[in-house]
Amino acid sequence: MNSFIYDVPTKIYFGENAVDNLSTELEKYGKRVLLCYGGGSIKKMGLYDTVVEQIKKAGLELFELSGIEPNPRVDSVREGAKICKENNIDVLLAVGGGSTLDCTKWIAAAAKVEHDAWDFFSTWADVSDALPVLTVLTLSATGSEMNCGGVISNPETKDKIGRLAKPLLPKASFLDPTLTYSVSAYQTACGAADIISHILEVYFAKERDMYMLDRFMEGLLKTVIKFAPIAIKNPTDYEARANLMWASSWAINTFVTGGKTHQWSCHPIEHELSAIYDITHGLGLAILTPRFLTYCLSEENVDKYVDFGVNVFDIDKTLPKMEIARLAIDKLSDFFFNELKLDSTFTKIGIGRENFTLMADKACEGDIIDGFVKLTPSDVEKIFEMCI
Amino acid sequence: MNSFIYDVPTKIYFGENAVDNLSTELEKYGKRVLLCYGGGSIKKMGLYDTVVEQIKKAGLELFELSGIEPNPRVDSVREGAKICKENNIDVLLAVGGGSTLDCTKWIAAAAKVEHDAWDFFSTWADVSDALPVLTVLTLSATGSEMNCGGVISNPETKDKIGRLAKPLLPKASFLDPTLTYSVSAYQTACGAADIISHILEVYFAKERDMYMLDRFMEGLLKTVIKFAPIAIKNPTDYEARANLMWASSWAINTFVTGGKTHQWSCHPIEHELSAIYDITHGLGLAILTPRFLTYCLSEENVDKYVDFGVNVFDIDKTLPKMEIARLAIDKLSDFFFNELKLDSTFTKIGIGRENFTLMADKACEGDIIDGFVKLTPSDVEKIFEMCI
Repeated sequence: MNSFIYDVPTKIYFGENAVDNLSTELEKYGKRVLLCYGGGSIKKMGLYDTVVEQIKKAGLELFELSGIEPNPRVDSVREGAKICKENNIDVLLAVGGGSTLDCTKWIAAAAKVEHDAWDFFSTWADVSDALPVLTVLTLSATGSEMNCGGVISNPETKDKIGRLAKPLLPKASFLDPTLTYSVSAYQTACGAADIISHILEVYFAKERDMYMLDRFMEGLLKTVIKFAPIAIKNPTDYEARANLMWASSWAINTFVTGGKTHQWSCHPIEHELSAIYDITHGLGLAILTPRFLTYCLSEENVDKYVDFGVNVFDIDKTLPKMEIARLAIDKLSDFFFNELKLDSTFTKIGIGRENFTLMADKACEGDIIDGFVKLTPSDVEKIFEMCI
Repeated sequence: MNSFIYDVPTKIYFGENAVDNLSTELEKYGKRVLLCYGGGSIKKMGLYDTVVEQIKKAGLELFELSGIEPNPRVDSVREGAKICKENNIDVLLAVGGGSTLDCTKWIAAAAKVEHDAWDFFSTWADVSDALPVLTVLTLSATGSEMNCGGVISNPETKDKIGRLAKPLLPKASFLDPTLTYSVSAYQTACGAADIISHILEVYFAKERDMYMLDRFMEGLLKTVIKFAPIAIKNPTDYEARANLMWASSWAINTFVTGGKTHQWSCHPIEHELSAIYDITHGLGLAILTPRFLTYCLSEENVDKYVDFGVNVFDIDKTLPKMEIARLAIDKLSDFFFNELKLDSTFTKIGIGRENFTLMADKACEGDIIDGFVKLTPSDVEKIFEMCI
């Protein structure tokens, strides 16, 4: 078990009408706010008006950046940083899902430097400072509301890169489950797959870590598996939306990680898929994860699969270990493809073999993925083949 | 499900030699530090020297308050506050168990006011400010290292009162499981009982709350039930000490509470016991809790007991509900009194019926305890009677 630092000071307002507390937080951070959002959905649902009212109440001058896209692009970061610099913005307010939040967080960093925003990803330029960021969440998936990471795409280079940087951690986030009532069945399903992948990336580790954290992760997995189908069936089920929302934050706010240091596997592989094909992140993860788990299974690591099967899916613990492992993977596939109704193969979503080699090489960054099981580009290609 | 604010910015350094990071944090908070501790145990274990070295490294001037007692008294708070005022102390460093931490936190508040420290408890005087507090933990039990509460005793009035106040939250806490290797079997057992009680006070609630949080609480309970006996048998088992330590923080740092608002039951009742008899808090809780659960059980609330029995103790879920409930309480008693070897009755620890009426009245503060089940002084007396 390794040592670790736990440091997650983000303040969370959770519950219906959480946004009513926005002005109290906003006024702590200055006089000029840049409101960042995506398409028109926050206007349609009335959230835009609520937020603008809170900004007025707090007495801040409002600037806007709209049109932040899913798989947000570095051009949006550049545009946001330009607005910040030209208008001496004091604080950023992201309203939307993970893409909007991620983009806003990198705007906060880019606003503080002279170099191009892509340097944060191409040359790993230092992130020593950032404008303060507040977030209002409308989609339970990425956990961006309570962590310091963000993923940005560059269509020119066909790169999609995630990076953590402490100054990007939101100061406060507003989590109102009713704001996710209008999330479609498909996006709810993709969000659930993303949350599950965040947990499994940590849960399946070559390093042994804390019993307590494993039990927590199993609890989070059971939560998502129980409530995602309920939310899809009844989009306004408060309990389902609330559990998914809070689970999404805790799946990836570093608490579950403890002292583990292994590299994630499915996320870097999926980033190559969505960088080229612009598919929804959670869909890519759902297709990849059961194949990844099947590919990695061995006598040596089967105990972790047994925990997963017995504690999450209630599989009979007296069965042979390898059988429990395979049943657990089957249950996970069943959840993704039958319960959540996500497409189960690359073929179904129009991805062929044409970029397998390129994507496998990029996922391994010319080396290996040093995760649960060491993966070479050739291993990744075999996992891709299983997804066809 | 109620709304809530989650706001726990305490930074945690977790792992062996975590204290090596103390100077980095100390130097953020000023030039003069008051080191607060209890008896001589931190000197015996070499921790005092390590801490003083870190204080020197950070360049702070050192002041000391030693002799903070278990069930810390308001006189120690007064003494600490006097030292702070006379010497313009900038930051407090608590090194020890929950008693030392609680006392130090209230010194931090008392240093900022002119009135007597007991006013915080007798007249609920406002706590708007406090000196910054850092903590080095040597006992896994109270969770004081990551929350804003503290319990203080007043032997003159025979009161023992706990209170939460946001400014008391430690800025950083240093959790090194090896610092608990020297904790005796008895204190380890009492600590485990305290942690379990913190969880059950929240878990058994009349309000329904988040499925996700219930699963987390069950995971914490399983963690303590698994590792406390291991730590007692092998005091230097790192994994056991680490799991107990991190579980103690999360049992009572507000995360598990979600939006629940009900009053705790066993804690206020136990405070009356230890205010008069000065018994170890965890021991009192272990004796009270199974009786409390037995007294409160009804057809109306049996489902919660079923969750507890099935998910924590792996009791056969096909049994009748009331049978599962009773088996679960038996398992808990077995854990406290056979596995942890704690005394199981008042009689065994020299407590008779002489103060039952007085203690029951004070526990209810002249009214009722509005917790899992509403308890009148007469109910509390009946629970006391079950403990004889």
